[in-house]
Amino acid sequence: MDDQLQRLNRLPLRDDLRGQHPYGAPQIDVPIQLNVNENTHGVPQDVQDAIVEAVRGVVGGLNRYPDREFTRLRESLAEYLGHGLAPEQLWAANGSNEVLQQILQAFGGPGRSALGFPPTYSMYPLLAAGTGTAYLKGTRQEDFELTAASAARQVRELAPNIVFLCSPNNPTGTALGLDVVEAVYEAGEASQAIVIVDEAYAEFAQLGTHSALTLLPGRPRLIVTRTMSKAFALAGARLGYLAAAPEVIDALRLVRLPYHLSAVTQATALAALEHRASLMAEVEEIKHQRDRIVKELARMGLTPASSDSNFVFFTGLGDPQKIWHGLLEAGVIVRDVGIPGSLRVTAGTERETSAFLTRLEELLAADGRLPAA
Amino acid sequence: MDDQLQRLNRLPLRDDLRGQHPYGAPQIDVPIQLNVNENTHGVPQDVQDAIVEAVRGVVGGLNRYPDREFTRLRESLAEYLGHGLAPEQLWAANGSNEVLQQILQAFGGPGRSALGFPPTYSMYPLLAAGTGTAYLKGTRQEDFELTAASAARQVRELAPNIVFLCSPNNPTGTALGLDVVEAVYEAGEASQAIVIVDEAYAEFAQLGTHSALTLLPGRPRLIVTRTMSKAFALAGARLGYLAAAPEVIDALRLVRLPYHLSAVTQATALAALEHRASLMAEVEEIKHQRDRIVKELARMGLTPASSDSNFVFFTGLGDPQKIWHGLLEAGVIVRDVGIPGSLRVTAGTERETSAFLTRLEELLAADGRLPAA
Repeated sequence: MDDQLQRLNRLPLRDDLRGQHPYGAPQIDVPIQLNVNENTHGVPQDVQDAIVEAVRGVVGGLNRYPDREFTRLRESLAEYLGHGLAPEQLWAANGSNEVLQQILQAFGGPGRSALGFPPTYSMYPLLAAGTGTAYLKGTRQEDFELTAASAARQVRELAPNIVFLCSPNNPTGTALGLDVVEAVYEAGEASQAIVIVDEAYAEFAQLGTHSALTLLPGRPRLIVTRTMSKAFALAGARLGYLAAAPEVIDALRLVRLPYHLSAVTQATALAALEHRASLMAEVEEIKHQRDRIVKELARMGLTPASSDSNFVFFTGLGDPQKIWHGLLEAGVIVRDVGIPGSLRVTAGTERETSAFLTRLEELLAADGRLPAA
Repeated sequence: MDDQLQRLNRLPLRDDLRGQHPYGAPQIDVPIQLNVNENTHGVPQDVQDAIVEAVRGVVGGLNRYPDREFTRLRESLAEYLGHGLAPEQLWAANGSNEVLQQILQAFGGPGRSALGFPPTYSMYPLLAAGTGTAYLKGTRQEDFELTAASAARQVRELAPNIVFLCSPNNPTGTALGLDVVEAVYEAGEASQAIVIVDEAYAEFAQLGTHSALTLLPGRPRLIVTRTMSKAFALAGARLGYLAAAPEVIDALRLVRLPYHLSAVTQATALAALEHRASLMAEVEEIKHQRDRIVKELARMGLTPASSDSNFVFFTGLGDPQKIWHGLLEAGVIVRDVGIPGSLRVTAGTERETSAFLTRLEELLAADGRLPAA
């Protein structure tokens, strides 16, 4: 044990934190980064310019606290989402992690529980632990799908206070049918469960996939979370948000830190929302690369999951760690999510995607998994 | 009870949040805002320009997650604070409220307690409640001073897990002697108390006031928090930070949300740190106005507390609410902190300070408290 760890252990740390490690994928400097589902196509020039001008517009007033209600941003988010949403139904924070943390602070906490369906977004259990909420692990089918009947049955049996539905699911990439959300909401009536549908990747959905936003009317326990980290290419700007009934927003006001959203963050997000045409064009190109990955992986004899996101989860690998290292040697980093035989890859630019596919095919061939080209 | 409140009450809110109201001073549009201790002198032009250029420098990379360790910012903060501090001893978050929340998450929480000495910063009990930490109220002398002997005795008796020492204290404005910090640290040995010295206003200290940063060597349970909201005129940018032993930083990494500090926030704070000469010149001017307020209030027969901050707390008012409203009618907003006979005013620009003093004297004269001028 090194000195610093010994010194940490002498501090009066909470018992449940002892021996834990900080969360986060390694931040390695690699030419082709396809490991954390960022938008690989970059911030379009017109959005960059708009952000700089927006910051110029607020910088003179930074000596004052920001608008605690971020009214203009909520108006813009409501207009962007559509579905008849009003600004009173919108809320935002520094990344969807903070949005989720606030929901857990308001509706979870000691003596309460949250149900997730692993494999799913790995922050759910950590956010539960950080707020003293018990985390319950539900189950999925062997192919990682979750049916309405199974999800509803688990909600009835476990009676959680909060349910996490990740759609499309991370790391597997497939969206849930709205029948699952409806069934879970209904099954949660008995335990008055708050149902969170995490739609971080919603903009990358395939044609015919519907957002849970359509289910909000008449469902005050339903919350749909979104982020500007993916489709809006703003992972670095930290802006997560949600839509729900106005009284849910009132509840979150009781737990948010005052002035949690900086004036610079508000201006940055607003500028991107106002210049979203070029961003949405990028989304189409990313979906194209995503579909190309799915098709090519299938051709290589692997099993890619159907993807409504900007990444592809695939199984059928004999030794994923070996493939992961082989890709890294070629300057391509992907994500090993710890599921046997699988890896997850973010859709890159055309060039990045080609580099990934070419190298992967070489590695599979070298392993005798494919006839050499 | 209105409809929306009824709907909120039907939601499965945590019991301890029921009936609560959101925290925050009213955000009223008044010409002269001296109520929330902002830096009234504004962001100097060279700092504004530097921030815009810094944001231009990072905007192209916003599609990537930010540096989770904000290494450059920590280096700059360490260099700014001096006292031989290394970057490994620095940490930052979105405002010092988030810094304090992370400390409570790591070292407080259910089954643990935090001790404050009211009247003091009103967020302490709220941050404690939000993290499930019991909040213990210590006592001060009638003149709001806190002696080393009294503070140490209370720490020994109450055996808290965390102690909040606000220096200079908000709302009263007076700094603590380092003997108080030393005595509290020593008294906290038995309960292994984390001792937080909140130095949000440290840059406004009077000559001869010393920072608790000088006490850090050899005291791994001591944490000194700071903010860029006051001296750095960046309340709108949300950057709080702290200095402590490196193992304290390791503990905070276990509870921080990943990527909690945006690349734009990091760039903004760095730019201000690099252009701090003009900000520090402003601090001198603010101290001058602060001293002027203290002197003038004493001349009017009121009792201003000795101030090491950018605000002045004063007692001796017969009807503070009436004075507060009279000032507001003249376009000047100050803070009623709920202590009988008192108000708190932020040091304004020369013009703002004059407007406050003139109007106050008129109101006192009209009340027969002063001979008419």
